[in-house]
Amino acid sequence: MEIFYTDMVDGHEARLDSEESTHAVKVLRHRRGDEIAVVDGFGNMFHCRLTDDSPKGAVAEILEKVPGWGAHPYSLNMAVCPTKNIDRFEWFCEKATELGVDAITPIIGERSERRVFKPERCRKIVLSAMKQSLKAKLPTVLDAVPLKDFLSQDVPGLKLICYCFEGDARRESITDVLNEYATETSGLGTIGATGCTGDASTAAAAGNTVGHCSETPDEPKITILIGPEGDFSPEEANLAVSRGYIPVHLGPSRLRTETAAVTAVTAAYLHFAKL
Amino acid sequence: MEIFYTDMVDGHEARLDSEESTHAVKVLRHRRGDEIAVVDGFGNMFHCRLTDDSPKGAVAEILEKVPGWGAHPYSLNMAVCPTKNIDRFEWFCEKATELGVDAITPIIGERSERRVFKPERCRKIVLSAMKQSLKAKLPTVLDAVPLKDFLSQDVPGLKLICYCFEGDARRESITDVLNEYATETSGLGTIGATGCTGDASTAAAAGNTVGHCSETPDEPKITILIGPEGDFSPEEANLAVSRGYIPVHLGPSRLRTETAAVTAVTAAYLHFAKL
Repeated sequence: MEIFYTDMVDGHEARLDSEESTHAVKVLRHRRGDEIAVVDGFGNMFHCRLTDDSPKGAVAEILEKVPGWGAHPYSLNMAVCPTKNIDRFEWFCEKATELGVDAITPIIGERSERRVFKPERCRKIVLSAMKQSLKAKLPTVLDAVPLKDFLSQDVPGLKLICYCFEGDARRESITDVLNEYATETSGLGTIGATGCTGDASTAAAAGNTVGHCSETPDEPKITILIGPEGDFSPEEANLAVSRGYIPVHLGPSRLRTETAAVTAVTAAYLHFAKL
Repeated sequence: MEIFYTDMVDGHEARLDSEESTHAVKVLRHRRGDEIAVVDGFGNMFHCRLTDDSPKGAVAEILEKVPGWGAHPYSLNMAVCPTKNIDRFEWFCEKATELGVDAITPIIGERSERRVFKPERCRKIVLSAMKQSLKAKLPTVLDAVPLKDFLSQDVPGLKLICYCFEGDARRESITDVLNEYATETSGLGTIGATGCTGDASTAAAAGNTVGHCSETPDEPKITILIGPEGDFSPEEANLAVSRGYIPVHLGPSRLRTETAAVTAVTAAYLHFAKL
């Protein structure tokens, strides 16, 4: 199933940008009258019929809107230190999108080998993965932020920090913490009245920088911190704990950063898949 | 922590091959008298002291043997259809090794886009991942085999087949099946008296082709089949079911082959991590 992406959805029609139009018309040979599926990146899939098959500016009339298409019942922000080898981080971005993620915040930690991160390639990869995996909500890849700055933000919901060293704080297993959290009937971390209503202007107005944006404010919100190749330092871990992050481990294996990140995404995915 | 690999372990000494010796002596500048850690690929780690620092043939005396180093308490054979893009399959091999896997059997399915597979690169990747993740048991990457041939083999333990289509057989979630299986006190699928005792000659004599080889015959044995880009066909799925494979799904997301494979490895990993 081929789906198209656009943020130009207005009333009764969807307009494809130049690249998507070329793909639809020149490569897939769609013509006026053909039915196509279009997602808007906010969770909506639109059954459409092509009314204008221009290869640079295709237009389709909306026949039906399907909200929450391919959605997952939780909001996950993965705050991960980008790896020195950027391919590995890009691999994580793709896999996280396939499984289910809402935001990826690149973190610069004390021991990060990669201290400069440009999000453009990851944003392309995430867009491509969204389409390929038949989802309609585009995960946000934020600009990189130093850990201390990230920790100074107010973040709703369940907050976890994964690290490898044996410190003062006792680390629980991520599956145990998710099991405890999911039985709670309160404290799901709603983000209040500034929740996004599903279009770009509202999202910007909400000033939503912490990565959680949901049309359903009651769904569980989870933020998971994954450290760099050299792990978080004890000082960083203590700071996170003081800001409400629960120390967790990801089982007995010694995982690379990007593997740990995908494992955490998978733990959340499998947890909510069985509820 | 740097570890070295060799299959040349004999009594009281370990001999490194040319490549490992060069790495130890020229790159890391180890000299006679230095202590190094060596794994044999069968689960044993040896604390050693270098007695000969030749850059082409280093030799170390064994001070202590640590069996089951970095081991996981189950035996997992991932039977996965190699992807057209071989990088993706190689990523899976690396991640499976980091998390925990015992054998990788490349499967050629009816709808496989990749019908020829050369295992050499994957074997190198798996060896590298074993060392990097501080494990001592080298996962076996078998030669590719058509699905029908693989299904004609007798395979002990729990057998799962993952596919996407809604067929006659009802698919359970992989987590449910693992939960059911792990509570069983019998039927763990021992492979009998021909279990490997940990050296190459015995492994070959055992004729062990199905990928399960364990010093502890009582540990749970699991085989998971993952289909190609176009999924298994209903005929293939029915054949697997007739051979005792339980149909499972991996949750609601639509996953690429290599993502599905790593997700299945992770489901097993997280399941046994909490027991």
